[in-house]
Amino acid sequence: MSISFREEIKNLQPYKPGKPIEDVKREYGLDKVIKLASNENPLGCSPKVRDAIINTLDELAIYPDGNSTDLKEILASKLGVDVSEVLPSSGSDEMIDMIAKAYINKDDEIIMADITFPRYIQTTEMMGGTPVIVPLKEFTFDLNGILSKITNKTKLIWICNPNNPTGTMITEKEFVDFLDRVPSNILVISDEAYREYVTRDDYPHNTIGLLKKYSNLLVMRTFSKAYGLAGIRVAYTIGNKNIIENINKVRGPFNVNILAQAAAIAAIEDIEFLQRSYDINLEGKNYLYDEFDKLGFYYPPSETNHIFVNVGKNGQDVFVEMQKRGVIIRPMGGDFIRVSIGTMEENKIFIEKLKEVLG
Amino acid sequence: MSISFREEIKNLQPYKPGKPIEDVKREYGLDKVIKLASNENPLGCSPKVRDAIINTLDELAIYPDGNSTDLKEILASKLGVDVSEVLPSSGSDEMIDMIAKAYINKDDEIIMADITFPRYIQTTEMMGGTPVIVPLKEFTFDLNGILSKITNKTKLIWICNPNNPTGTMITEKEFVDFLDRVPSNILVISDEAYREYVTRDDYPHNTIGLLKKYSNLLVMRTFSKAYGLAGIRVAYTIGNKNIIENINKVRGPFNVNILAQAAAIAAIEDIEFLQRSYDINLEGKNYLYDEFDKLGFYYPPSETNHIFVNVGKNGQDVFVEMQKRGVIIRPMGGDFIRVSIGTMEENKIFIEKLKEVLG
Repeated sequence: MSISFREEIKNLQPYKPGKPIEDVKREYGLDKVIKLASNENPLGCSPKVRDAIINTLDELAIYPDGNSTDLKEILASKLGVDVSEVLPSSGSDEMIDMIAKAYINKDDEIIMADITFPRYIQTTEMMGGTPVIVPLKEFTFDLNGILSKITNKTKLIWICNPNNPTGTMITEKEFVDFLDRVPSNILVISDEAYREYVTRDDYPHNTIGLLKKYSNLLVMRTFSKAYGLAGIRVAYTIGNKNIIENINKVRGPFNVNILAQAAAIAAIEDIEFLQRSYDINLEGKNYLYDEFDKLGFYYPPSETNHIFVNVGKNGQDVFVEMQKRGVIIRPMGGDFIRVSIGTMEENKIFIEKLKEVLG
Repeated sequence: MSISFREEIKNLQPYKPGKPIEDVKREYGLDKVIKLASNENPLGCSPKVRDAIINTLDELAIYPDGNSTDLKEILASKLGVDVSEVLPSSGSDEMIDMIAKAYINKDDEIIMADITFPRYIQTTEMMGGTPVIVPLKEFTFDLNGILSKITNKTKLIWICNPNNPTGTMITEKEFVDFLDRVPSNILVISDEAYREYVTRDDYPHNTIGLLKKYSNLLVMRTFSKAYGLAGIRVAYTIGNKNIIENINKVRGPFNVNILAQAAAIAAIEDIEFLQRSYDINLEGKNYLYDEFDKLGFYYPPSETNHIFVNVGKNGQDVFVEMQKRGVIIRPMGGDFIRVSIGTMEENKIFIEKLKEVLG
């Protein structure tokens, strides 16, 4: 007899890891490989993080502060909220998992876009919820479409703003109008992983300010992108303290590791590094826009550190050919690829190799 | 209207973090506080780990290898199993959560001891399973009692060997006899967090060797204890590849952070550090045994790095009084406390303060 696993996980796909750079080097005999596939910060992270980690090396044998007390206090103070309204997590990945475990019952309807961040659907299915998919409209969230899908079974709505992988955003006015029309017993999650890269003024820069009025709103932010800490896993979520408390019930006791806590505290103070990350991203984005324009490629304008672009040739084929030339990008459906904005040197190599591939 | 959370989490207690050392110092105006409450390695960790982390500091902005490829390969090679039979996790905490998400359906019966590691019951309740509690017998697992509780609803059985917090163990013979009598559609998990501290020869040192015969066995080990890496969260589990594959389906894509992977790889090679950890633990255990004997205290013999001891006075009161004197231990039920074995200096301070408290 074999052991019966939960029916809900039957069709879940185990995570397929991207090829490590080292494997690509070995496979194709390349000296240098650049990865523009995971929306990582090409500047690395703040040098202050390095010091913070080195200063914590004597404490590796000690369990992390399970409450992430210091990090929570600094975040609460910076954001002007109470510590009971903040919850750090081991990356947004863990937060999405915790939200699902705290809130998604079998057959609850969970509304999300297509295309958007894939963890929303995976955790919904894991908990036996029913994903309700609303296609993007002109590459961005179709908020009216989402509202029209609300039923008495709707439990939560995932809004990724700006959206991964399309890079598009919804405005503050659109978001507030939307929140006004969502019943207050439905949780709305604003996943703002890329917010630090947004250039437009009409983006909802102050969703924290909306929390007082909309007690069903949850705001998710991360240190993985503009802060450059993807490797050590740390993110945080802000919301009504009752919601935070419910999520906290399913949290592992030591979810944010000791170095991640120290790193995040150091990173948050380095405004200058954040500004440099923004600047280099904007410079790279404008360069890539220009090159794509010259090549006649369509791309929706991006408010993130990546561009979703139609290269006029099958994305999977382009991915393989680019990899042979030492550049890892992400194939999307049809002729689309997603490319992360790198250093100017990386962006130029990417364009050079892309031209080669497209002949 | 408020947002309805899952009924299963209603009575879950959010994790109550232990008081950080710094808070205890501040509260009681103490210069030095020692913590013998979390079974941490008093030697810290291998110096090789420090180097491995420093060598990885340039990669903090890069996502970890989601597959933990290198770590998995080293573990598989050391343990003589296939890579498909190993799964690293962000501490055993995350593995217990993943096992629950992959296997526990509503109303499945999950058998565990009382007292044992509390995460087993918390994750069972989180998934709507029914905990079936079998009290310890003479402070150790009552395997016949467990067998008598098996029904057609039993999904999995948690065996913590040696057990936390009692420090007691079951022998290889007892374990094999037990496995022979458990139906093969029930998952048996051997949580061996403290295995490196075991002194007895009749402990099942080679549970990996049992995996071929018992496809329903899962072996859980950690780097948090004897390897001294509690702060950065890394553990691993070995079992039948079908089980590993099912657990892998609910795993977060980047569950083991980049520094934890590097640290574990370095730690596993430092046999000398492991030996020192074992030696200092044994020396401390014998010292504490002697002192407890002189005081006439009962303790079950421990095969771990902690001792569960009856101090003849309410454990909670002793905990508070010890804290005032700069020593943090863990109160257990009644007159029991659990004390982690520290350095000899720490052990001596603990005994000195304990004598003070007990008058």
